[in-house]
Amino acid sequence: MGLNIKKYTEELKNLNIEGMFDNDFLLTWEKTDDEIKAVFTVADALRCLRENNVSARIFDSGLAVSLFRDNSTRTRFSYASAANMLGLAVQDLDEGKSQIAHGETVRETANMISFMADVIGIRDDMYIGKGNTYMKEVAHAVQQGFIEGVLEQRPTLVNLQCDIDHPTQSMADMLHIIHHFGGVENLKGKKIAMSWAYSPSYGKPLSVPQGVIGLMTRFGMDVCLAHPEGYEVMEDVQKLAAKNAELSGGTYRKTYDMKDAFENADIVYPKSWAPYAAMEKRTDLYAENNQQGIDELEKELLSHNAKFMNWTCTEEMMKLTRDGKALYMHCLPADITGVSCEHGEVEASVFDRYRKQQYLEAGFKPYIIAAMMFLAKSKNPEKMLNKLLSGGGVPRCL
Amino acid sequence: MGLNIKKYTEELKNLNIEGMFDNDFLLTWEKTDDEIKAVFTVADALRCLRENNVSARIFDSGLAVSLFRDNSTRTRFSYASAANMLGLAVQDLDEGKSQIAHGETVRETANMISFMADVIGIRDDMYIGKGNTYMKEVAHAVQQGFIEGVLEQRPTLVNLQCDIDHPTQSMADMLHIIHHFGGVENLKGKKIAMSWAYSPSYGKPLSVPQGVIGLMTRFGMDVCLAHPEGYEVMEDVQKLAAKNAELSGGTYRKTYDMKDAFENADIVYPKSWAPYAAMEKRTDLYAENNQQGIDELEKELLSHNAKFMNWTCTEEMMKLTRDGKALYMHCLPADITGVSCEHGEVEASVFDRYRKQQYLEAGFKPYIIAAMMFLAKSKNPEKMLNKLLSGGGVPRCL
Amino acid sequence: MGLNIKKYTEELKNLNIEGMFDNDFLLTWEKTDDEIKAVFTVADALRCLRENNVSARIFDSGLAVSLFRDNSTRTRFSYASAANMLGLAVQDLDEGKSQIAHGETVRETANMISFMADVIGIRDDMYIGKGNTYMKEVAHAVQQGFIEGVLEQRPTLVNLQCDIDHPTQSMADMLHIIHHFGGVENLKGKKIAMSWAYSPSYGKPLSVPQGVIGLMTRFGMDVCLAHPEGYEVMEDVQKLAAKNAELSGGTYRKTYDMKDAFENADIVYPKSWAPYAAMEKRTDLYAENNQQGIDELEKELLSHNAKFMNWTCTEEMMKLTRDGKALYMHCLPADITGVSCEHGEVEASVFDRYRKQQYLEAGFKPYIIAAMMFLAKSKNPEKMLNKLLSGGGVPRCL
Repeated sequence: MGLNIKKYTEELKNLNIEGMFDNDFLLTWEKTDDEIKAVFTVADALRCLRENNVSARIFDSGLAVSLFRDNSTRTRFSYASAANMLGLAVQDLDEGKSQIAHGETVRETANMISFMADVIGIRDDMYIGKGNTYMKEVAHAVQQGFIEGVLEQRPTLVNLQCDIDHPTQSMADMLHIIHHFGGVENLKGKKIAMSWAYSPSYGKPLSVPQGVIGLMTRFGMDVCLAHPEGYEVMEDVQKLAAKNAELSGGTYRKTYDMKDAFENADIVYPKSWAPYAAMEKRTDLYAENNQQGIDELEKELLSHNAKFMNWTCTEEMMKLTRDGKALYMHCLPADITGVSCEHGEVEASVFDRYRKQQYLEAGFKPYIIAAMMFLAKSKNPEKMLNKLLSGGGVPRCL
Repeated sequence: MGLNIKKYTEELKNLNIEGMFDNDFLLTWEKTDDEIKAVFTVADALRCLRENNVSARIFDSGLAVSLFRDNSTRTRFSYASAANMLGLAVQDLDEGKSQIAHGETVRETANMISFMADVIGIRDDMYIGKGNTYMKEVAHAVQQGFIEGVLEQRPTLVNLQCDIDHPTQSMADMLHIIHHFGGVENLKGKKIAMSWAYSPSYGKPLSVPQGVIGLMTRFGMDVCLAHPEGYEVMEDVQKLAAKNAELSGGTYRKTYDMKDAFENADIVYPKSWAPYAAMEKRTDLYAENNQQGIDELEKELLSHNAKFMNWTCTEEMMKLTRDGKALYMHCLPADITGVSCEHGEVEASVFDRYRKQQYLEAGFKPYIIAAMMFLAKSKNPEKMLNKLLSGGGVPRCL
Repeated sequence: MGLNIKKYTEELKNLNIEGMFDNDFLLTWEKTDDEIKAVFTVADALRCLRENNVSARIFDSGLAVSLFRDNSTRTRFSYASAANMLGLAVQDLDEGKSQIAHGETVRETANMISFMADVIGIRDDMYIGKGNTYMKEVAHAVQQGFIEGVLEQRPTLVNLQCDIDHPTQSMADMLHIIHHFGGVENLKGKKIAMSWAYSPSYGKPLSVPQGVIGLMTRFGMDVCLAHPEGYEVMEDVQKLAAKNAELSGGTYRKTYDMKDAFENADIVYPKSWAPYAAMEKRTDLYAENNQQGIDELEKELLSHNAKFMNWTCTEEMMKLTRDGKALYMHCLPADITGVSCEHGEVEASVFDRYRKQQYLEAGFKPYIIAAMMFLAKSKNPEKMLNKLLSGGGVPRCL
């Protein structure tokens, strides 16, 4: 029997994670190192339970509300998988995009959907300055509802991607890295290149690169952010990355040269994202309902974007990395040159060579989400894990 | 331990509720006083279980079909919550509005979706004379299917709002009142004003005021219905309200003066609804596919509606109520003056002062729906409640 | 107590069904006679459990992904019922029709939705040469994902209708026949007429007639396929039907005369389907994006179709059958003359007389689907059934 959950419960014992109970998971940098570690530990523990056909249901009934303001297949299925694993049923909130409105409505909606909600997962990544703000409004509303006795439980918010961070992605990425390199203790001094890459669509969210530099700098790695001029990410997140690096004994730097970033990298993460300033401008234009302005901006962005078609992860580029063998990462779906588009983020042969690795990377996400839920719902997570094993555990499949 | 379910089982023992087993819940006035009381009792008992982290799952598997012919967030989530609480999975029937058709099709569809259905929840409130009729057709179809051996169980229908009644709303409202006034025995002589109020949208269903006067008149209260001329509710329901009042030792009367209704009221429920006669006309025009007629009617209705902008729940109006402190109620969402519209049903400061109360009111709905399901599925509800507690009960969350 | 599951476990003991474990169900003719028999046996056993209020949940948690590329109510509800019965939650994949694309994307999507998927049900019946091919691609992708360690379990594919076969329909039909005639041993020499019938819509899938002749020929029956010239079904399936008949001691023949088919038939299955050659042409036109060609083809097809309005199941036609009392079958919904259309597949009085029978026929589908899932997920199905009964079984409803 491969089931040795004790390793995980021992780890949890040493962590100070009391603050996670009944709390949300919005930004990784709002969490302590112990809390981040606890998510990884519980994610691994839940995977271990599943591999051994032991049920991880901590709920006999309950709802996991999902509120997706952007299309999603991967994250939607990961969220549904995580909820199901713990015993919650998913209930989608199909919200018209115009319903966002003023504070009153957010408060009301948040309470009305939460009478039996244990978790609320939100994806809101379309407009700069909006997503995270919205999540905090919802969190505030349900907190108040709980205090007032309107809600019998305080539903936990899980950020499934906002305008600032994409914690379930960056933490799944990180757990993949940890497993790939045989443990977090082996990451010191490893170089990771988070690089912009060309895609014919110019408007992808910034939350992935921001999430990556905001998290990966906490493990003593050398994190290098590369992008063409004009594709800067949020200033605050860059400062945070620098501070994180200092504290963790790693480094953080930015370069406008993709080759510079790839040079001797142990990990490369080439991915398209939108220019921040332009996205801010677009948000304002939308607020003004200025369609002409939006159309002009789009033209400008497309022509600007087209100048950087050579920012792409070719075999040539991969040769620059450590022994030519850096771990290639992507949050998927990738824009693959000659496959899903004429010119894209990555050459087909590179993508194919790392296909299995990327699927494994993606496979951590359901467990990361489940771990976030688990830690917010367990007063004593160590004890909770042990409960799941009492009497040998309930088989997931008879 | 706050779990004292005995109070509820003792109450159930004294009620004659055999007729509820395998039966539907379509109109409150089709139910005896004992049956209405049983719904309140079970709703409170289920809440008590939940507050004490005891699972209320009476089903190990099973489906709760939902058929919403009108948009809904609150009722949809309440229904999903109720189903989940009892162990049922929600399965939505996404029906094109045109599929209603002739009897054969209703019968066929009703049977085809019911092979594993324990409950069917229907919202069909758009057209006068249609919703309740449709529900009865579905009920007849599944009854026949059950008798013929096509269905292994007889799914219970729950009316989630029809053209005549909105029982899950009025009963949640009533349970809120009972708790607010410290027991049903304290309601005798209390005055409730069910008043029309202005909203820029003129076409809201009549099922809320009808449901309220049809139910609240059964508890010895003084029920006063107020609305401008032309906003009459169904004649049959008014007669019923009068008869109920007589039997219960309360009163029922109608007034065309909002102030008259608010005067010394203990409870006010100001809410917009459509003029019944116009809605009947509209239903006919739709049946004739007469778009010009519909457009003309709409113009007429809007201009007529605009005449009654002063029917609104202001602070001034609230001063007329008992000590200026009547309980303000609304089924939500409300049209709030200066917040969700220029002129609406209620002044913002009134709404805000009673916000918590309204959320609490809404919070009874999942339990009311669950109680209706529970009573239809338990041959012996008292015994069923005790089963849920056997061995201390199964924890809802480990 | 009516629960005698032993009969079914004894039957399973004698069947060689090891190949079903972790395997898909795409075409009935890919399955051995023992495997087909096992599906019927388990379907009956699961029904027996349900009738006796014993839970059939073999999963404590897990997902049943559904991917419907065509509208569906009956099959969708049957699939949801089957999943729920075994303890799985349904998660829909809402896929834009254009996303089909190249192999890489299918592989990626298949893996991304399968991290916690125990079953994937697919309906893809619109284009000749596509549906079954797509299912095989998905099956290949998840198999590889499982081998590579990307997926912790190999999700089972269930064909919910493709361009070639409709196994969950034909097997539900067959189980209905078996029960109707009191056992499979009574079917030898029984004549079944699978006949084309007129419907105003000319484009219905061929998978039903193909599924029927591909399966019904395996039980020693005399299977007669009737249709107007030009409505041929796939050549390969016809050959297979002939071979099946030979092996089973029955017969298979084709006729262009509906009366010939109905003559002395014990069972009639009159149903519209599209002309295969035209459907192939249409698929090509769609691939070429040739809208003019599609429009011309449609005109041609409609006028051709209208020539065969007399291919309809009237009372007159029914008189030709064995004692005038053949069992009338349909997969539903049927096009009923004077009810759902002016001229249809069947006369209203015939349809009505067999209404109950048809509902019973449809009622087998959830159990057939559940049995396919059950057999793919149980290493030892006999033992699994016994597990469900250990200690008297868990009640489905308390």
